[in-house]
Amino acid sequence: MSERSEKGLLVIISGPAGSGKGTVVGKILSSYPQEFCLSVSATTRAPRVGEEHGVHYYFIDKESFEERIEEGRMLEYASYCGNYYGTPAEYVEKKLDEGKNVILEIEVQGALKIKEKLPETVLVMITPPDYATLEARLRGRGTNTEEDILNRLQRAKEELELIGHYDYAVINDDGKAEQAAEQICRICESEKRRVRRQPDFVKRFFS
Amino acid sequence: MSERSEKGLLVIISGPAGSGKGTVVGKILSSYPQEFCLSVSATTRAPRVGEEHGVHYYFIDKESFEERIEEGRMLEYASYCGNYYGTPAEYVEKKLDEGKNVILEIEVQGALKIKEKLPETVLVMITPPDYATLEARLRGRGTNTEEDILNRLQRAKEELELIGHYDYAVINDDGKAEQAAEQICRICESEKRRVRRQPDFVKRFFS
Repeated sequence: MSERSEKGLLVIISGPAGSGKGTVVGKILSSYPQEFCLSVSATTRAPRVGEEHGVHYYFIDKESFEERIEEGRMLEYASYCGNYYGTPAEYVEKKLDEGKNVILEIEVQGALKIKEKLPETVLVMITPPDYATLEARLRGRGTNTEEDILNRLQRAKEELELIGHYDYAVINDDGKAEQAAEQICRICESEKRRVRRQPDFVKRFFS
Repeated sequence: MSERSEKGLLVIISGPAGSGKGTVVGKILSSYPQEFCLSVSATTRAPRVGEEHGVHYYFIDKESFEERIEEGRMLEYASYCGNYYGTPAEYVEKKLDEGKNVILEIEVQGALKIKEKLPETVLVMITPPDYATLEARLRGRGTNTEEDILNRLQRAKEELELIGHYDYAVINDDGKAEQAAEQICRICESEKRRVRRQPDFVKRFFS
């Protein structure tokens, strides 16, 4: 009997600006390329220089995006500055069936929509150790206006107040992104050992 | 902000005879003596040679055992061959408050009683990789009668059919008790990062 369920896990990783979630996700993907892959979003906005179709985004036109919404082929979507952004279900399902854990790096509202549709999804919130660190990181970038910083701090507050809907909280302390990445991998490893994810456990044991 | 909740986890480890759960528990305790401790049961049976009060069991008389039951000071108990066996709540609560994860090595019925009383308990079932291995292990001991073996196999079947009530299944393959122990430690580590185990997360973050 194989000791794990064969299907991959859908793992949503969220975190406010300044949480360092991008770095953490990058470390998971580079350390465990066989186990994890990143979901590729679809968008109707034009590609920027260097962006590749199927790598950074699936660039599709408005008509086919709306068609996909109607056909239920988007796990979640939102519009922002006149463009659609969303998560195509097909790619995610294909990778899960191959046994890969699929990481979705999206914000809280989208995460909750997907959890409603697919309750087996694992929601992980990455946060700095505390508010002071968050503020220091946002100010430390040096490229944001004061208004920008205050907006981001306000937004972080709103996001973190929804943390009760998340399954796990992982703290990304300064210079410890590798540790946070390792913790998320262990969470996924443990989740796969959940009995409710292995409904045929008894059958397989006795076969 | 400390990255973990301060209180320890109550972890029940069950498994049929032949699962090797004793070996796995021993490895957890010897590898992580700071993080884990074993709950000590109470019994009304007489101590055997070499058994120490407070180490192997709390040896108490029938009257005080029944008094403790009435006062709700036993997390679970059962009688077997005319003697009581049970888990005193006090020791467990003291260790949990100290931040230790407390391991309880008990069978399925007792585990379910405790889970009902303390829903935050983590239930882990240790199993051999499959039925053939279980049978080979029981026969390999060479000290059991055929009747004994068949009884144990029947009992294992009954226990494993209740695995749906457990949170996690961990497979203890031949010669891999260390790996199973490590997996259980990672499960506990991940459980401690659950948001619902940190109800004051937001408050602490902003303080």
